[in-house]
Amino acid sequence: MLVCSRCGREYPETFRLTCDCGGTFLVEREYYDFFGNLLPYLDMRRYLNFIPIGGNYLPPAIPAITPVGALQMGPVIALFKLEYLQPSGSFKDRGTYVTVAKLMEEGIHEVVLDSSGNAALSMALYSLPAGITAHIFVSYDVMLEKLSLLQRLGAVLNFVDGDRMAVHERAMEFAENNGVTYVSHWLNPYFLEGTKTTAFEAYEQVGVPDYLFAPVGSGTLFLGLWKGFKELQEMGEIDRLPTFVAVQASGYESLCERSPIKNHLADGIAIPEPPRLGEMERVLDETGGRCVSVSEAETGEALSWLTRAGFLVEPTSAVVLAALWKLVDMGEIPDGSKVLLPLTGSGLKITEGI
Amino acid sequence: MLVCSRCGREYPETFRLTCDCGGTFLVEREYYDFFGNLLPYLDMRRYLNFIPIGGNYLPPAIPAITPVGALQMGPVIALFKLEYLQPSGSFKDRGTYVTVAKLMEEGIHEVVLDSSGNAALSMALYSLPAGITAHIFVSYDVMLEKLSLLQRLGAVLNFVDGDRMAVHERAMEFAENNGVTYVSHWLNPYFLEGTKTTAFEAYEQVGVPDYLFAPVGSGTLFLGLWKGFKELQEMGEIDRLPTFVAVQASGYESLCERSPIKNHLADGIAIPEPPRLGEMERVLDETGGRCVSVSEAETGEALSWLTRAGFLVEPTSAVVLAALWKLVDMGEIPDGSKVLLPLTGSGLKITEGI
Ligand SMILES: [Zn+2]
Ligand SMILES: [Zn+2]
Repeated sequence: MLVCSRCGREYPETFRLTCDCGGTFLVEREYYDFFGNLLPYLDMRRYLNFIPIGGNYLPPAIPAITPVGALQMGPVIALFKLEYLQPSGSFKDRGTYVTVAKLMEEGIHEVVLDSSGNAALSMALYSLPAGITAHIFVSYDVMLEKLSLLQRLGAVLNFVDGDRMAVHERAMEFAENNGVTYVSHWLNPYFLEGTKTTAFEAYEQVGVPDYLFAPVGSGTLFLGLWKGFKELQEMGEIDRLPTFVAVQASGYESLCERSPIKNHLADGIAIPEPPRLGEMERVLDETGGRCVSVSEAETGEALSWLTRAGFLVEPTSAVVLAALWKLVDMGEIPDGSKVLLPLTGSGLKITEGI
Repeated sequence: MLVCSRCGREYPETFRLTCDCGGTFLVEREYYDFFGNLLPYLDMRRYLNFIPIGGNYLPPAIPAITPVGALQMGPVIALFKLEYLQPSGSFKDRGTYVTVAKLMEEGIHEVVLDSSGNAALSMALYSLPAGITAHIFVSYDVMLEKLSLLQRLGAVLNFVDGDRMAVHERAMEFAENNGVTYVSHWLNPYFLEGTKTTAFEAYEQVGVPDYLFAPVGSGTLFLGLWKGFKELQEMGEIDRLPTFVAVQASGYESLCERSPIKNHLADGIAIPEPPRLGEMERVLDETGGRCVSVSEAETGEALSWLTRAGFLVEPTSAVVLAALWKLVDMGEIPDGSKVLLPLTGSGLKITEGI
């Protein structure tokens, strides 16, 4: 069932984004026996028994199980999870895979969404084979490389003159005025059912990390990771959660205090007013975690380091490393801690200097 | 040990590319009990017991286990293996991962190689964290997007005015004149020790396919796949090999008859005189396979189809599908056959129309 995160009201599992009270939903089901219910796949379908879709339609571009590379980093062990090794080049494919399967079950063939880039790319990629028409709202400052890819994928593009929140509002208007299903990953509970598989994989690969750093804009990865570990706990598989650290871009903080100087490099998380803010605050409380804000310079430095380590990612992916360095410097991470750092977006699509 | 594919002479397992007779090497070891020797990883390290490296140095960007998406295609079942979901965006990372581990074991910190793009990108990416200086020879017609990435990865670029064979010769000259190790993936036996893991994965995922189509330029994927399935057979794990189909680009055929019109789209396999030609002919003989040549138009049509199916790949990746269509049309593939089609390179790095 869908359960409202604000008022607790329950709804059947249709494709629905918000409660009558305006609150956001989580899908709630009871699962048990994690290892006993794994399917014998070496890709995301391994976890289909824990995903609320029927399996009548599964998109052909199945998300991969992403490797975890461990590197000693000063006193801690950094566990880089290569979430960018996915069909459209970002972790979003996990959420989109589940979303498109659900849309097909519901017979929905036309959708609208807004995105700074990666979510749009992902939805465009998965909509094509499903025969779903995707109306995509972007701002004029979207990366040219992403635009080129979106056009190749047959997305219907709508440009909005304004910031990320303006794009969001215009997309919602379009949906309402035209009776087209709005599939915002900010709100969509099925999206989190995809991103939670990152936690299942990480658990199989490295157990329960002591800390987990995730980039937080709208929080779809952060909340998915929390939901995955939480479900493992509810299944009796693990007895503690990692400490969750939410990493934000300076100038666009929602959990941390808003700073006056903008981080323009981490464009993927430049989302100042995410609708699931209250849920994220509860995760920080529940796990004894905190928020860290990183600057453009810190992001750039971490990005260079990642490239030199062989992780070819986009700038937004680097914020988690910048935040780790910061907390290690401040002495906030005990020696020997295992720290999970998902790297979210591919750097292949960035072609500077051409 | 290294065994010469031409004269059969044996050598110790150092980093060496050719026999005194000029022949190419394969690494030969005896393996047994495939499932009993898998390591509990969900990435390429799962197969480390079948790879001739010690494991003292393993590159941090571990290649992923790539998903296999099955699609009914007329009378046959096409099994698309998403080999492009790798750290540098192509299947080459499997070979490079093993190569760099071996170079580090041998204390080699400076290398030279030639490439039309993907092999260079891969070597540049893995050389950086290993502290290996990579001198890379490319022709002037290398894709700008790949050049941009190579520069970001700190490769030392050398441009050659000439075709793919001229680039190859200039790189070999440079190696000889400067005493720098030449790491051509065309010759390097350790490269095949990486690409063979694709066969191990495919076997775990879908069993032994009836047919296997691979793009063939230098043949590093084709021969790796053959070696992997062959080793499974030698371990007593499987009792037959798939029928191997070598797919080539028209105008650049080495196994098929050379056609007069060039396929400019499939630039990754525009290699008219690969050194391992005799070995590939033996694989076709041994498995009852054949060679298929595809034109630029056929490649383009298959590429569009793949994009619409949600597989965002580069043009060279599409030749296997074009070849499958051709053989199905000719009635050469029995109904119900399972056909493995590795998709080799990411389309994310192609940013047309910017
Ligand atoms: Zn409510
Ligand atoms: Zn010899």
